[in-house]
This record gives sequence, structure tokens and C-alpha cells, in this order.
Amino acid sequence: GPPLFGTMAIIGPGLIGSSLLRRARTSGWLAEKLVAIDHAPQVLARVRELGLADMVTSSLAEGVREADLVILCVPVGAVRETALAAIAHMKPGALLSDVASVRTTLGPEITAHLPPDIAYVPVHPMAGTEHSGPDAGLADLFENRWCLVVPPEGTPAEAIRKVEAFWQRCGARTREVTDSYHDQICAMVSHLPHFLAFTICETADRLSGDLRSDVLEFAASGFRDFTRIAASDPVMWRDIFLANRDILLATLERFQTEVDKMATALREEDEQAIMTRLEHGRHIRKSLIANRQA
Amino acid sequence: GPPLFGTMAIIGPGLIGSSLLRRARTSGWLAEKLVAIDHAPQVLARVRELGLADMVTSSLAEGVREADLVILCVPVGAVRETALAAIAHMKPGALLSDVASVRTTLGPEITAHLPPDIAYVPVHPMAGTEHSGPDAGLADLFENRWCLVVPPEGTPAEAIRKVEAFWQRCGARTREVTDSYHDQICAMVSHLPHFLAFTICETADRLSGDLRSDVLEFAASGFRDFTRIAASDPVMWRDIFLANRDILLATLERFQTEVDKMATALREEDEQAIMTRLEHGRHIRKSLIANRQA
Ligand SMILES: NC(=O)c1ccc[n+]([C@@H]2O[C@H](COP(=O)([O-])OP(=O)(O)OC[C@H]3O[C@@H](n4cnc5c(N)ncnc54)[C@H](OP(=O)(O)O)[C@@H]3O)[C@@H](O)[C@H]2O)c1
Ligand SMILES: NC(=O)c1ccc[n+]([C@@H]2O[C@H](COP(=O)([O-])OP(=O)(O)OC[C@H]3O[C@@H](n4cnc5c(N)ncnc54)[C@H](OP(=O)(O)O)[C@@H]3O)[C@@H](O)[C@H]2O)c1
Repeated sequence: GPPLFGTMAIIGPGLIGSSLLRRARTSGWLAEKLVAIDHAPQVLARVRELGLADMVTSSLAEGVREADLVILCVPVGAVRETALAAIAHMKPGALLSDVASVRTTLGPEITAHLPPDIAYVPVHPMAGTEHSGPDAGLADLFENRWCLVVPPEGTPAEAIRKVEAFWQRCGARTREVTDSYHDQICAMVSHLPHFLAFTICETADRLSGDLRSDVLEFAASGFRDFTRIAASDPVMWRDIFLANRDILLATLERFQTEVDKMATALREEDEQAIMTRLEHGRHIRKSLIANRQA
Repeated sequence: GPPLFGTMAIIGPGLIGSSLLRRARTSGWLAEKLVAIDHAPQVLARVRELGLADMVTSSLAEGVREADLVILCVPVGAVRETALAAIAHMKPGALLSDVASVRTTLGPEITAHLPPDIAYVPVHPMAGTEHSGPDAGLADLFENRWCLVVPPEGTPAEAIRKVEAFWQRCGARTREVTDSYHDQICAMVSHLPHFLAFTICETADRLSGDLRSDVLEFAASGFRDFTRIAASDPVMWRDIFLANRDILLATLERFQTEVDKMATALREEDEQAIMTRLEHGRHIRKSLIANRQA
């Protein structure tokens, strides 16, 4: 088929942004012309070296001016400011999107400043690695992964349809959800696990002397898996935690309730209660494998 | 070199036990004759089919009678009872060992029943997978992994030396530690991570209706890593949690303190405190990689 868009501009060609550029380079039917925008000269130089875009610029105004689709792929903490700056220079009829991992606190702030002739269809591709920057991107990063689509109320159906088609052409499965439902899901499947993983590393770091160094030395597989999660970029996670603060704290509270129940079962040596809880854990794992996401 | 032992008897040829048998089959210098003992006929039949031992029996008395080295590889909950049964039939001068993941509550109970002419040198190989049974074993499971050696006070140095040499010939690095130091390390690097992983799965399982099924559906990488840990055998982990109850609960308390501090930093939007904590997490990860255990 013909490309979905004429010109596509990616702001922040890091892990996610450069994956989209790579995908568009290899498939051709996403967009005719590719623009990469970043504030960092070394990022732009690297994008040029890798040949990921037809136009590479540090000027937001210049980069978005002719774009039919603008996708913000900057860190969560920079999305709002960058969106408002981009909107001011986008042409009428153009489509704005972002890929930020948190929605409830972000979406309404951008929607409030949206001119009537620009549609805003943010998404969250549920894919990633613990690496970042333009070298970390992969053309097939989104293959068979979910991409949640989170349009504000009143967004034209045609704009939503085009963005869904775009992500499907990137290999993803799409699903429309509301802001707050999105943030509840992500608090459970991603933000809380990262919160706990960072915290278990912190706990180990605070052990004293020999025990601390031996814990590092003897780290068995359980601990290694945790630290792999905690290897992710601290700035990114600080911003995600802050942006999804209320829902994350509520999810943490649910988790703490379960921790307390399990600790009580253990303290009282209630073998049956412990067993039931451990079997639930296994059950969830089996469901995941059945869903072919594991 | 010549084999370290004449006859080696493995009680419970599951993941760990059959890995030792496989190693002894491929290297030859561990033991001359291999005996496999189990209570389950289907396990014995499988060990025979795989050709892992020279003698396969369901009789503990028969199996250990001529053994120079007896290694208990049964689940934590069965170690004490099986050890006492084995001791009654072992020959003078023989060596008893086990591989249980918990020590403080187990060691003294066995030591109390030990005749003076049998040495007891338990170990804990820090290696494993989430699989179990005789088919799960691997000849190189212990390669480059740590094996903690936890002899009771007063154990003859020669017995300790022989057991360390045995594990080194299995590819492991050995280190002597005390009961309680061992249990503190394992509470942090293995038992607490498993406790949390099972509990996060339980938390997800208790979500209501749509959210629960969508969480399973959209599980991102953070959650997947957790569920992988929680895929381990519930009976094994119930027994480990119970056997290391006090130290595990104390380690959990330390963890909870850090969770509370992180939650407070988040509630107060204290960016600096959040950042410092997240960076510690990354730091621990880097130390692990430096230790080449990751
Ligand atoms: N990583 C994941 O697993 C994942 C998954 C789904 C969604 N997301 C979302 O994707 C977005 C990007 O994440 P990523 O992992 O791709 O990060 P990344 O690899 O660090 O890429 C971000 C890029 O944006 C640039 N940038 C930062 N601030 C900017 C600004 N104000 N103006 C223009 N460019 C700026 C960065 O350059 P400098 O580094 O030089 O500042 C970098 O090139 C985030 O919103 C994140 O929530 C991430
Ligand atoms: N898995 C790990 O990651 C790991 C790591 C280090 C140490 N360990 C320790 O290694 C030991 C064994 O664990 P594993 O993972 O190898 O378990 P496994 O694969 O389930 O093997 C245990 C074997 O012992 C048999 N068994 C159970 N009760 C018995 C009894 N009363 N008498 C004789 N045989 C009995 C089992 O047969 P049935 O299944 O038919 O009962 C099975 O063949 C545990 O003490 C564990 O703490 C495990």
C-alpha cells in the first residue's frame, strides 16, 4: 500500500523514537519523508551517521513545520513542554502523538492547549529494553507487542484509526483505553515492579560491611532478575513515578496488604495459607504463558 | 587424578541430585560408583532410563550401606527425617552432606543425632533453575557458581577439604560460612526476592474483573521478570520460607523500611531523594556485573 503519512517527525530519536525511524526506513509504507528532531547535537550527529532520517535538525519549528505526523519520543518529564512548543509550529490538519508511559497527569495538560485543527492521539507501546539513545533502537521492537491508544474524549475517529493503522504496520496489536485505566494497568505491570526492584537494591546497598559485599558476591538468580529491572534509567523512572504518583501509591498499598498477609501466615506457620498464596503466584505465571506474552 | 570417593549415594535425584550424577558420569574423578535413591518409583525408573547411576533403589538402607559419600538432595522439608534415616545405615568413616537452601534451623537438628564416626558437611550450591525432577539436571549446572560450605563446629578439617574438592571438581567456587551468615545472605539474595515475586502475583490475582485480565494481557517486561521468579515450585518455597522464617521476616522488615522511605519521598515529590535511591539501585547492578555474576 501507499505510505500512511507524507512527512513524519520524531522528536527525541532515542530507544523508542529511533525504533520508529528504523521501522519506517525498512518498511516504507509508514511515511514518505522522515524528520528527526533533538536538542542534543551528539544525538543528531549519531542519527545522521546511522542514516535514520531524511532531515535532521535541532530546530523544533523547522522540523515540525511540514510534518503530517509528529511523535514526541522524549522522556516523560519533557513531554508537556515539548508538546506545547511543537503545537505552535504544526500545520493545520496535522496529527500529534506521544509515547509517554504515563497518561492521566499528562494528557489533559496538552489537550487544554490543542488548537481545533490538530488532533492529538497519544499511545503507549508496551515494549522496551533497559537501554536508551539512538543506538538502542530496533526496527522490530514493537513486533507482537501491545500498543495502548489513549485519545482524549472527542478525538475524531479518523485520526484514531490512522494512528492505530500506523502502529499495526509497526507490528503491534492496538487497543483503545482511557487515561486512568491505562495508568492503573501500568502501575501494576510496570511501575510497581520497578519501584520494588529499585528498593530491594537499596536495601542490599544499606547492609553493613561484609554482608553487603557478600550479598553482591553471592547474588543468586532471584536477586539478579531484580537488579536487571533496576538497571533502567533513573531519570526516566523518577519522572514516571512522579507522573503516576497517586495510582502507584494506591497500587503499592494493595501490594503492602498482601505482603502483610503473607508475613502473618509465615509468622503463624500457617502452611495452608502460605501454600494457597504461592500457588496463586504460579497460576498467574501460567496465565501469562497462555497469553504468549512471557 | 583418581576419583575422590569410592561410592557416592544421591538421595533425591531431582534437579540438583541428577546434576551431580550427570557431572559424575561425565567427569569420572568424583566417584567410582554411583547410587541413586528415591521414594518415588517413577523417579527411579526415569533415572534408570537416563542411565545416570550404577545402582538405583528405593531402599535407603541398601543404598547408603556402602557409600563413602551420601548427599541428601531432597526438598528442605524432607531433609531432617531423611538424614536421620540415612545415618542409621551408613558405615563408619562415611561422609554425610546435604544441599538444602536453609541452614540455621536444619543443621543443629541433624548434628545432634550424628554418631562420632560420621562427618557432616552440608553445602548450598548457589545454582538452579525453576525446573525440577531428574530430567531438569545439567552436568554443568554448578560451573562458575558459588557453593557455600556450612560445616558444624568441630567438623574434621579433612572432611571439609574433601567436600570442597568435590564441589570444585563440579566447577564451583567454594567458601566456608557459618549457619546464620548463610541464612542472612540467602534471605537477601533469594528468599526475599521470591517472597516479593509471589506476592506481586498475588496482588495482581486479586484485582477485579477486567483490570485483572488486562493486567495479564498487557504484562510488560517488569512484571514478566517477577512472574518468572514466581514460577518456582510452591512446596519448595513454602518449606524454605518456613525454615528461614525469622531471618526472612527480619530482612523483610529492612525492606519495608526502605519501601516506606521511598513512598514518602514520592508522596512529598522529593525529586532529589527519589533520584538518590534510584541511583543506588543502578549502582548495585553495576557492582554485580563487575562481579561477573549477572
Ligand atoms: N524505554 C521504554 O521501555 C519505554 C517504553 C514505552 C514508552 N517509553 C516512553 O518513550 C519515551 C522515550 O523513552 P526512551 O526510552 O526512548 O528514551 P531515550 O532513549 O532516552 O530517548 C529520549 C530522547 O529524547 C531526547 N530528549 C530529551 N529531552 C528532550 C527535549 N527536551 N527535547 C528534545 N529531545 C529531548 C534525548 O536526548 P538526550 O538524551 O541527549 O537528552 C533522547 O534522544 C518516554 O516518554 C518513555 O516514557 C519508553
Ligand atoms: N532448585 C534450586 O534452585 C536449588 C538450589 C540450591 C539448592 N537446592 C536444594 O536442593 C534440594 C533439592 O531441590 P531440587 O530443586 O533438586 O528438587 P527436585 O528437583 O524436586 O528433587 C527432589 C527429589 O527428591 C525426591 N524426594 C522428595 N522427598 C523425598 C524423600 N522423603 N525421600 C527420598 N526422596 C525424596 C523427589 O521425588 P518426588 O518429586 O517424587 O517427591 C525428587 O526426586 C532442596 O533441599 C533445595 O533446597 C535447590
